Amino acid sequence: MTNELTHFDESGRAHMVDVGGKEITARRAVATGFIRMRPDTVVLIREGRAAKGDVLAVAQVAGIMAAKKTAELIPMCHPLMLTKVKIAFDIEEDGIGIEAIVETRGQTGVEMEALTAVSGAALTIYDMVKAVDRGMTIERIGLQEKAGGASGHWVRESASGV
Amino acid sequence: MTNELTHFDESGRAHMVDVGGKEITARRAVATGFIRMRPDTVVLIREGRAAKGDVLAVAQVAGIMAAKKTAELIPMCHPLMLTKVKIAFDIEEDGIGIEAIVETRGQTGVEMEALTAVSGAALTIYDMVKAVDRGMTIERIGLQEKAGGASGHWVRESASGV
Amino acid sequence: MTNELTHFDESGRAHMVDVGGKEITARRAVATGFIRMRPDTVVLIREGRAAKGDVLAVAQVAGIMAAKKTAELIPMCHPLMLTKVKIAFDIEEDGIGIEAIVETRGQTGVEMEALTAVSGAALTIYDMVKAVDRGMTIERIGLQEKAGGASGHWVRESASGV
Amino acid sequence: MTNELTHFDESGRAHMVDVGGKEITARRAVATGFIRMRPDTVVLIREGRAAKGDVLAVAQVAGIMAAKKTAELIPMCHPLMLTKVKIAFDIEEDGIGIEAIVETRGQTGVEMEALTAVSGAALTIYDMVKAVDRGMTIERIGLQEKAGGASGHWVRESASGV
Amino acid sequence: MTNELTHFDESGRAHMVDVGGKEITARRAVATGFIRMRPDTVVLIREGRAAKGDVLAVAQVAGIMAAKKTAELIPMCHPLMLTKVKIAFDIEEDGIGIEAIVETRGQTGVEMEALTAVSGAALTIYDMVKAVDRGMTIERIGLQEKAGGASGHWVRESASGV
Amino acid sequence: MTNELTHFDESGRAHMVDVGGKEITARRAVATGFIRMRPDTVVLIREGRAAKGDVLAVAQVAGIMAAKKTAELIPMCHPLMLTKVKIAFDIEEDGIGIEAIVETRGQTGVEMEALTAVSGAALTIYDMVKAVDRGMTIERIGLQEKAGGASGHWVRESASGV
Repeated sequence: MTNELTHFDESGRAHMVDVGGKEITARRAVATGFIRMRPDTVVLIREGRAAKGDVLAVAQVAGIMAAKKTAELIPMCHPLMLTKVKIAFDIEEDGIGIEAIVETRGQTGVEMEALTAVSGAALTIYDMVKAVDRGMTIERIGLQEKAGGASGHWVRESASGV
Repeated sequence: MTNELTHFDESGRAHMVDVGGKEITARRAVATGFIRMRPDTVVLIREGRAAKGDVLAVAQVAGIMAAKKTAELIPMCHPLMLTKVKIAFDIEEDGIGIEAIVETRGQTGVEMEALTAVSGAALTIYDMVKAVDRGMTIERIGLQEKAGGASGHWVRESASGV
Repeated sequence: MTNELTHFDESGRAHMVDVGGKEITARRAVATGFIRMRPDTVVLIREGRAAKGDVLAVAQVAGIMAAKKTAELIPMCHPLMLTKVKIAFDIEEDGIGIEAIVETRGQTGVEMEALTAVSGAALTIYDMVKAVDRGMTIERIGLQEKAGGASGHWVRESASGV
Repeated sequence: MTNELTHFDESGRAHMVDVGGKEITARRAVATGFIRMRPDTVVLIREGRAAKGDVLAVAQVAGIMAAKKTAELIPMCHPLMLTKVKIAFDIEEDGIGIEAIVETRGQTGVEMEALTAVSGAALTIYDMVKAVDRGMTIERIGLQEKAGGASGHWVRESASGV
Repeated sequence: MTNELTHFDESGRAHMVDVGGKEITARRAVATGFIRMRPDTVVLIREGRAAKGDVLAVAQVAGIMAAKKTAELIPMCHPLMLTKVKIAFDIEEDGIGIEAIVETRGQTGVEMEALTAVSGAALTIYDMVKAVDRGMTIERIGLQEKAGGASGHWVRESASGV
Repeated sequence: MTNELTHFDESGRAHMVDVGGKEITARRAVATGFIRMRPDTVVLIREGRAAKGDVLAVAQVAGIMAAKKTAELIPMCHPLMLTKVKIAFDIEEDGIGIEAIVETRGQTGVEMEALTAVSGAALTIYDMVKAVDRGMTIERIGLQEKAGGASGHWVRESASGV
């Protein structure tokens, strides 16, 4: 790990970093986040799943599709052929935990894809229930784990979990 | 404001809500968020702006372009012709505050566009400096204010500010 | 209705037809289609909905998002701000019927958006169950009804229904 | 071939299947479809090709571009680097047959890309001639052949041809 | 016309200019460009059109679709609902002239859409014939005319024509 | 190098050329272009960079993102996983020179990606300063160098430089 911002070239201009010389390895990233809401809003989502109106089914599709849009959204991200995207939800009393696992085989990592999947799912949950709870907040989106590539295995210390 | 999830129809299937009968009015939404990082990472970004490598210039373009992609990312969002998108940053000691203001004239609001702009900018900041600080977290993304439309003016109580 | 292909100009080149002089009216289109499959594949989908793995929830999100992508997919289509998209499924013994209703207020109709929504939903059903039934076919995708605009109300004679 | 829907995980949530462990092989898929129309509409298209206004030239470009959009349209599809896309038309008396051949080298097949190419071409033909024949229907879109990968070579029995 | 760059706000950050207060008027822009190539390459294109392989038919579709992608490509461009896009070619001895006409009714002009249409068509011509003439150059892309909006009618002095 | 237009098949229909049999090699392309403007417009851009409002920072992000959109814009282009994109500007007295370097490892070259990056950056510069200088022209966009693949190393004779 270095002290310089690799996304800038020698003239101070942003560029898409050259990864052409990097090894092709299996890459994996796990990111998590949380959308905080009123307990009665959580109840609506939980009941909707059992009966009609599965908010989380829509959010999950949105999160997976967002992962595939990462290189379109994040200017300096390399396009990657993702081999796996999985999103899980944890319904808590005061909100919904979100976890995304993304994998590929390639020359650069999938941290941004996992973080983008979590963000896309969280925004979609917000959209689906905003009519009843406009004050929801999206919180603690972060990387939990990263494997593959020269920088090796990284795990967040004191991972907050989902 | 009602207690039902408007994004589901009578058979429990998600749909894009009919806004055809709504009035066309000026709509405005303000959303904010924060990306927490190590103080020395903040210094890198601050110095980069003065010298070479302006992380926030890239994040701002990304946030504006993300606002325009909202209807592609959030499944039940209506496409809208945005008339204004503005993103501001506030460099604090332990992170960067992000504020997005979005406006349109239309039949539905721009909350999701403002929240998506903040998310896109935050993710891009993460991407630009992740090589030096992988443990950053994106926090308290929320709506601060919303104007226009039948539901009227809404302001978050005790707005956390940027 | 005329005998000429309006999408070509006087030199025989395709163009996006000028609709600038058309009146802005409420537009509505209904399209339907069917994906034929083995009865036991239908059973899998039906049971999945009740228990785990709702194929149609994913197909529905895909159909709605496809409607919003119409102007990106169909070269001469005008971009439109859809005000409503709704997709319904009818589980039959030998396949799944699909119906899409799309509305807007604009200078041109939404037939292509409704047909694209049906196609997107049908392709997604295919994708979700192709591992068990590769021989499925997508059939009789057509317009059922169209309202609004100079050409008036059109209803398919002997509509096949969903 | 198995009896379970691979696109759902153990908790019943849709996911993008893990193909990271699959072998990279040459993949090929052939799909076909048909758009049925009035014989005089077929004549318009046939004459247009010879003279001015080539409907099928536009449809073909649309079909190829649709194939490249498959992973954006079909939620659980893996992004793939297609190495070949070819679309052929067969002008019959009562409609146009469409055939798409797609190839790649990768860890998963290109059936969805071939089916999406056919759908995109069919929808574009509909759009180009809908002013003269609104009752056209898109029919029998299906996979004809699939090669490469663990599941081996598959050919539709009694292929309906184009 | 002013001396300041309107796409930057008071803090020097780029933004999407507020056009919410502008009048909705009919907007029109005409842009042109030229792709210079060897005379024998021009012959190939000309003959292709008469016989098989119409390079310009593909370029035209690409130009129209590029116009619709303008707000995705140009960061500060407002999304617009185009009501007309038309592209014409002029086959000269040493290259192909390209002209795009774009119209809308809206709060901001369509100059960028017309220029993007010309660029998309020119790049596509390059792609289609690059195997035989890698040294082609795209030249003098510019606005020829602009009508509608507060700044009124503008026509390039000594327009170079197509 | 051959005399036929490879992007057309035996029936005269455009197709995405089969590159499945080509070798995977390191590919590199360099393209350049120029946007001509009034000297006082150049001064505005130059001063903006030093003070507030960096036109070229926005253009650079746009150029990089345009490179990633190449296969969406150019109908017959193969999707590619770019491993490097770099854009440089040269501020001259009567305009801005633009250079794009793109690299990948793949079965086909990245000429179109480099040319598209230059075009995207040029169009964005136009957009950012069009309020003060509507008569700007985009000029001499061309390939300067190409390496990798069966056709070997190609360098433009008497390269015009940036």
